[in-house]
Amino acid sequence: MTTAEKTLPTCDLARMKDKIATFSRFGDAGHGGITRYSLSPEAHQARDEFVRRMKAIGAAIETDDLANVYATLPGPEPGLKRIVMASHVDSVKNGGNYDGILGVMGAMEVLETVAADRIPHRHPLTAMIWTNEEGSLYPPALMSSGVVCGKFEQERMLASKSVLDPARTFGQALQASPYRGDARNRLNREACQAMFELHIEQGPILEAAGNDIGVVTCVLGMVHYRIRTHGQADHAGTTPMKYRKDALYAAAQLLVHLHQRLDALDPALVYTTGEVKCHPCVHTVIPDEVDFSLDARHEDPKVIQQVVEIITTMPAQVAGCRTSFELGWARDTTYFDRELVGFVKDSADQLGLSNQRINSGAGHDAQYASGMLPTTMIFVPSKDGHSHCEIEYTSPEQCTQGASVMLNAVLKADRN
Amino acid sequence: MTTAEKTLPTCDLARMKDKIATFSRFGDAGHGGITRYSLSPEAHQARDEFVRRMKAIGAAIETDDLANVYATLPGPEPGLKRIVMASHVDSVKNGGNYDGILGVMGAMEVLETVAADRIPHRHPLTAMIWTNEEGSLYPPALMSSGVVCGKFEQERMLASKSVLDPARTFGQALQASPYRGDARNRLNREACQAMFELHIEQGPILEAAGNDIGVVTCVLGMVHYRIRTHGQADHAGTTPMKYRKDALYAAAQLLVHLHQRLDALDPALVYTTGEVKCHPCVHTVIPDEVDFSLDARHEDPKVIQQVVEIITTMPAQVAGCRTSFELGWARDTTYFDRELVGFVKDSADQLGLSNQRINSGAGHDAQYASGMLPTTMIFVPSKDGHSHCEIEYTSPEQCTQGASVMLNAVLKADRN
Repeated sequence: MTTAEKTLPTCDLARMKDKIATFSRFGDAGHGGITRYSLSPEAHQARDEFVRRMKAIGAAIETDDLANVYATLPGPEPGLKRIVMASHVDSVKNGGNYDGILGVMGAMEVLETVAADRIPHRHPLTAMIWTNEEGSLYPPALMSSGVVCGKFEQERMLASKSVLDPARTFGQALQASPYRGDARNRLNREACQAMFELHIEQGPILEAAGNDIGVVTCVLGMVHYRIRTHGQADHAGTTPMKYRKDALYAAAQLLVHLHQRLDALDPALVYTTGEVKCHPCVHTVIPDEVDFSLDARHEDPKVIQQVVEIITTMPAQVAGCRTSFELGWARDTTYFDRELVGFVKDSADQLGLSNQRINSGAGHDAQYASGMLPTTMIFVPSKDGHSHCEIEYTSPEQCTQGASVMLNAVLKADRN
Repeated sequence: MTTAEKTLPTCDLARMKDKIATFSRFGDAGHGGITRYSLSPEAHQARDEFVRRMKAIGAAIETDDLANVYATLPGPEPGLKRIVMASHVDSVKNGGNYDGILGVMGAMEVLETVAADRIPHRHPLTAMIWTNEEGSLYPPALMSSGVVCGKFEQERMLASKSVLDPARTFGQALQASPYRGDARNRLNREACQAMFELHIEQGPILEAAGNDIGVVTCVLGMVHYRIRTHGQADHAGTTPMKYRKDALYAAAQLLVHLHQRLDALDPALVYTTGEVKCHPCVHTVIPDEVDFSLDARHEDPKVIQQVVEIITTMPAQVAGCRTSFELGWARDTTYFDRELVGFVKDSADQLGLSNQRINSGAGHDAQYASGMLPTTMIFVPSKDGHSHCEIEYTSPEQCTQGASVMLNAVLKADRN
């Protein structure tokens, strides 16, 4: 570290370690990871801890009608807009200790550093929890940011049924939550100047490049298709091969065909056939219908268009089976605010942290927020690229570096 | 029909139609087929109807400890062994109106014809219901014939759990059944001379050949494997293609490889990959494990051995994923009794019914019975080859022709 860099404020490793250890207990599944569905008792424990720690440094707590929580350190000048740092405390089933919660711990750490080190700032600074980012219990993902930022209809979201108990809705869980507050407290462009989200990369790129920080420039555009093959169910033991219309064999051929064609496109394209349903899925019956997902992501809409062309021109008949496809959804690439991206890049450089521009293949609340106000994200490395699983890991040092970059980027935005 | 043929007794179309219409009501699922699990109220309705009709012609009813039901018309000579005609009244979920029940209706029809036409016979003639052939509610299939014929351990079968309610066992269902009787009544070689089973083909061969009757010679030998690919779960949006180990893509390639190699073997081989499980099977996650079944059947053990060689020498690594295989079970080809097969063939010829030798790719209670006493089967055509589904169909005329062949084959065995 040079003398110049020493003058920059940084976050505290010991305090970050304590937060990681503490929050990892809420929803601890007993083998290194957590299951912490949105608005569950475990998620409320995490919120309680957030509130306790934020009150301890003098932050004011507010909640909105979707149970989003805001902890704000006021600034000296009245009338200035808030600078918000936000992420989520909910997880997928058997998820890890970093996805989402790191962004909340990072926001807390920034406010704690500002408070402890009495760092001067003009704007109010807010640490925020978004409700139900994962959508694991109440689909879809990005639920409350979708409502707040005008992407989702509120009534439909309130009616979302628990995947574990169809008699219970998200609206009921919200009614029962002590964190349900006033709609007037929602994140909005009149009261907020910018939003930052610190997150783990969830992929192997930073680690492979040996970089500390990902300066996120965009969330990738994507298309999601359901692709089906339609055969004829018959008895496995009594139907000669020449009479068969085996939908699984057709699906296997189609999968190989699609992979071969998609692999010839731009190498930055990512695409996944992650879900497959086979009917009737009995070892003594020839499958009559197979349905698989195809999710493709790329920054450039021209490449996405090439994917769409490959899907829409796939063979209509494979191994005697009819094929079909259906577009599930599509989204364009969301670019983050250039100025805020620059603040993140400059902060990483000035802190002497190796960094690179990176895009986000995963969706985040920040992508919806960016339609409302200037927004950006900061990534830290994921060990072996793993995420949404219990072995998800980012070291306390890396977590603290990410928080330090966010602190300095927030201070640059504050001075702006 | 020639003058000579006219002298042969035949079964009654109107009576068969009435039975088909009546039995199709027990478990009627409302759209042309039935769901009639073994020992369910619907299956008990079918048993009650069987008993009612058999008592009406003077048959004596017995049941054994597995609730198998026997209706016997005595013969004039004491001490002669029974000739048994047996099948099952239980169905798969959303099955049709012919699989299993046709063999019971055919056995009833034979006894009704013998009684109505006062056809002389020496041996006692028995119509029989096997309990739980399908194993749809309480696995495995062929359960009570397996126990009676020494293939399955009784205690393990009694402990078999309902697939709908793991708290309920087959043993409990048996205890609750009014058809549970005495183990001494079980089918046995001392009291029984032969067993016939009339069944639908469940395949397209007879229909395609334009033949009325299948003279069944054997039940095919088979092997059942589980084949797996092992990859690495990662986020669909954040993992570059070159880092992926996609177990579903590997499974698709392996399926195509296996099909290509197996298709080069004897054209009479049938093999099926009917069941596939994908983990975690989420559209945003790269699959880390895929498991599919491979079931292969052929009369000749040399061909089955070629299948085994193809499986055991499959590539150990596909698309970056490790592969593995596990033998589930294997059975040798079961040949039916030559003399009884001849009686079936001669009966069909003498009745002027077009016929062919055929093997059974599906398993039947007759295959276990044949290890205990001389046994054979008679097939009638399945429309479009469909079975184990609601559109399963065999015309009343074809059903009656099958019963007439069984009647005459039984009378040949009776005279023997």
